[in-house]
Amino acid sequence: MQPTSVPQTFRAIDVIRKKRDGVELTRGEIEGLVNAYTEGAIPDYQVSAWLMAVVLKGMTRPETAALTDAMLHSGDVLDLSSLRAKKVDKHSTGGVGDKTSLVLAPLAAAAGIAVPMISGRGLGHTGGTLDKLEAIPGFNVNLSVAEFRRVLEICGCAMIGQTAEIAPADRKLYALRDVTGTVESPYLICASIMSKKLAEGIDALVLDVKTGSGAFMKNELDAVFLAELMVETGERMGKKVVALITDMDQPLGNKIGNALEVMEVVEVLRGGGPEDLVGLCLELAGWMLHLGGVSHTVAEGKQHSAKLISSGQALEKFRQMVELQGGDGGVIDDNNRLPQARHSLQVSSTTAGYLASMQCERIGSACVILGGGRERKEDSVDPAVGIVLHKKVGDRVAAGERLATIYYNAEVPGTRARQLIEASCVVTDDAPSPKRPLIHRVIGEHGEKH
Amino acid sequence: MQPTSVPQTFRAIDVIRKKRDGVELTRGEIEGLVNAYTEGAIPDYQVSAWLMAVVLKGMTRPETAALTDAMLHSGDVLDLSSLRAKKVDKHSTGGVGDKTSLVLAPLAAAAGIAVPMISGRGLGHTGGTLDKLEAIPGFNVNLSVAEFRRVLEICGCAMIGQTAEIAPADRKLYALRDVTGTVESPYLICASIMSKKLAEGIDALVLDVKTGSGAFMKNELDAVFLAELMVETGERMGKKVVALITDMDQPLGNKIGNALEVMEVVEVLRGGGPEDLVGLCLELAGWMLHLGGVSHTVAEGKQHSAKLISSGQALEKFRQMVELQGGDGGVIDDNNRLPQARHSLQVSSTTAGYLASMQCERIGSACVILGGGRERKEDSVDPAVGIVLHKKVGDRVAAGERLATIYYNAEVPGTRARQLIEASCVVTDDAPSPKRPLIHRVIGEHGEKH
Repeated sequence: MQPTSVPQTFRAIDVIRKKRDGVELTRGEIEGLVNAYTEGAIPDYQVSAWLMAVVLKGMTRPETAALTDAMLHSGDVLDLSSLRAKKVDKHSTGGVGDKTSLVLAPLAAAAGIAVPMISGRGLGHTGGTLDKLEAIPGFNVNLSVAEFRRVLEICGCAMIGQTAEIAPADRKLYALRDVTGTVESPYLICASIMSKKLAEGIDALVLDVKTGSGAFMKNELDAVFLAELMVETGERMGKKVVALITDMDQPLGNKIGNALEVMEVVEVLRGGGPEDLVGLCLELAGWMLHLGGVSHTVAEGKQHSAKLISSGQALEKFRQMVELQGGDGGVIDDNNRLPQARHSLQVSSTTAGYLASMQCERIGSACVILGGGRERKEDSVDPAVGIVLHKKVGDRVAAGERLATIYYNAEVPGTRARQLIEASCVVTDDAPSPKRPLIHRVIGEHGEKH
Repeated sequence: MQPTSVPQTFRAIDVIRKKRDGVELTRGEIEGLVNAYTEGAIPDYQVSAWLMAVVLKGMTRPETAALTDAMLHSGDVLDLSSLRAKKVDKHSTGGVGDKTSLVLAPLAAAAGIAVPMISGRGLGHTGGTLDKLEAIPGFNVNLSVAEFRRVLEICGCAMIGQTAEIAPADRKLYALRDVTGTVESPYLICASIMSKKLAEGIDALVLDVKTGSGAFMKNELDAVFLAELMVETGERMGKKVVALITDMDQPLGNKIGNALEVMEVVEVLRGGGPEDLVGLCLELAGWMLHLGGVSHTVAEGKQHSAKLISSGQALEKFRQMVELQGGDGGVIDDNNRLPQARHSLQVSSTTAGYLASMQCERIGSACVILGGGRERKEDSVDPAVGIVLHKKVGDRVAAGERLATIYYNAEVPGTRARQLIEASCVVTDDAPSPKRPLIHRVIGEHGEKH
């Protein structure tokens, strides 16, 4: 659907009042508002009042789809029809230690799927895919659309940041939401994510919606609500979409920090790596292969993915992508070619027992304090620093045994990070109750919702 | 209370989020927001998001008082302590044919009360005191504060428009509310009205809160809610405040239109005039005299007011004020010195029966169509045009008998106004059920609320 131009009779004040009074907006009204704002025809102060009314009054499913559609069509939609492969992407709502995108793009590409992945940077306690990729010396995330297409054609996957051409309405709206207290709305989050992802010209999308102490949605019901909204919005626009509600009550994998996470990605692609990270990667890959038509079932997709790892094909695909995007493929064979922190220190348990819980957001914040993430958008990131966990929730711990190693470049942040990690790990006498599952629910594609 | 300067730690985004989440704001946060906005230190788009959150989440009484106080102290507060008389004002929330201010200011002044009245212009279907005063040739509503004080000292009453020095925060906030769908909030309406009125340096205030088809608050419960809010806010600031909930289901008095209403004011001050208008003026004057300490009871204040009219003292006070403000006092003796419309036409009843109801807002709109009011703030007003009602609700009507006379200067608006008036008057066979009372309730000063 192409956007209609702003009608003569469009008045922003009427659309604001209607939303304020809880009346459903028409597709034309939503398109009118988004288009007029993108063109600069209506001022920020009207749109911020409208955004606050959306935060407090919500949106119906048709309104959410209309908003997503208007934002999607505010800029270019990639036309990847020249690629014969099915285009499938994955998006995560963000967490601590979540490096699955770096595994999944080459893994799915090795299976014959095209993965045109446009990602973001880390903000607050969560990491970002672009920051992780940039830990690889030379890796360029700022490809032009033509270069992006070329890498995609050659190796089946490419990973870049948002371009000026893709969903400009989202960029403008997000900047306004950020300063007006209107970020926290599932409807606006859905439209923001889905407009950007659908502008990639994909056929299907696997969503990884995180829940737990390290996620934006601490509460599982909020995560499910957002997941259902995104699945329905994608389906209304003719795409195959599935959402997995996955656990983020402790960091994913053992390594947190940009270069450290690249090392762990290579471990996984070599057939090793921590159980939780490997399990989630295979689950998500299984869905990508299934929605992309490469496997009949998700289980088959998982088996196929495991073979692509054990055969080394996924790792070679990763090397190919890294080199096509200007990165040093040598990091795959030699960790020492990645940025290294100058110092390290240990966090040990004072008592014996079981690691009962970790306050996951605090562990993410410890990495930010070290310089591995950003508190403000304009902050730069130190790729070398981070945290390696030696214990995960449920593990036995001896008195004096290492819980984590901190890699740092400056003394004061190192000490503060240790205090934060110490405060976030709880060791108890008794083994904790059964572990939280890694996959809480599946929404869409014959999952719960249907 | 003087405003505290904006603290270093003040962040508008925190105040927006807090209000969005329904958490009560502190006095310091509200002062910080109002002061920063008035100084231009925070942008419109943050304040409009906050205003929408206030519209949808409401405010507590302490928040409303803090907002009023911050707006009141955003500019000058008149110091009228040199006047020995008690300073009492009256404010109406607006209606059709409501010219009581022009009667009350000289009437209360004749009783020895000082009335420093700062009024507004008409907007939409309602008239405005300043427009009515300006129908008097030469009358200047734009006195400086020094001139205002001088008129007040000489004659005990003066009537002007808002000055740049009084409550600048209200002017800036109101302009933003007007374009962001955030006018309709009792908390914001209360703070807007009360901040301006309390900046007049008054001791007491009588509020006339209108309800019915010609009022902004069509619903009596909404009117009562706003009235209670204003009374409590005024009392929290140490003022005597009473609110009368009065009827606006049909126009007040018989004349609507600026010059026509001045004529009716003179009729009342001469001891004549329509029963409903006279009754309301005496009731409001009774309260002004009572709160101003001139009479022990409201009833006594009404009797005293009636005497000031029958003795001609109130009329002479009106003449004095008109002349002190540059107006032609001769209009009092000769209606023909007021602007006159070139044409008139009659609206007659097609059937016999009783006038059962009038759609009051439509009658106000008919006057706007004639040019006697404004649809947009920048419109100019024709003082000569208007409507004279010959029948009020409950009156017997013969077939073909006149319901109203329209005074107009242009043919097309005249015809449209006639259609609107015809459509708004309902004539039935049977006498309507008992008339709505003129005074529905009294809030404050030992009235219902206490």
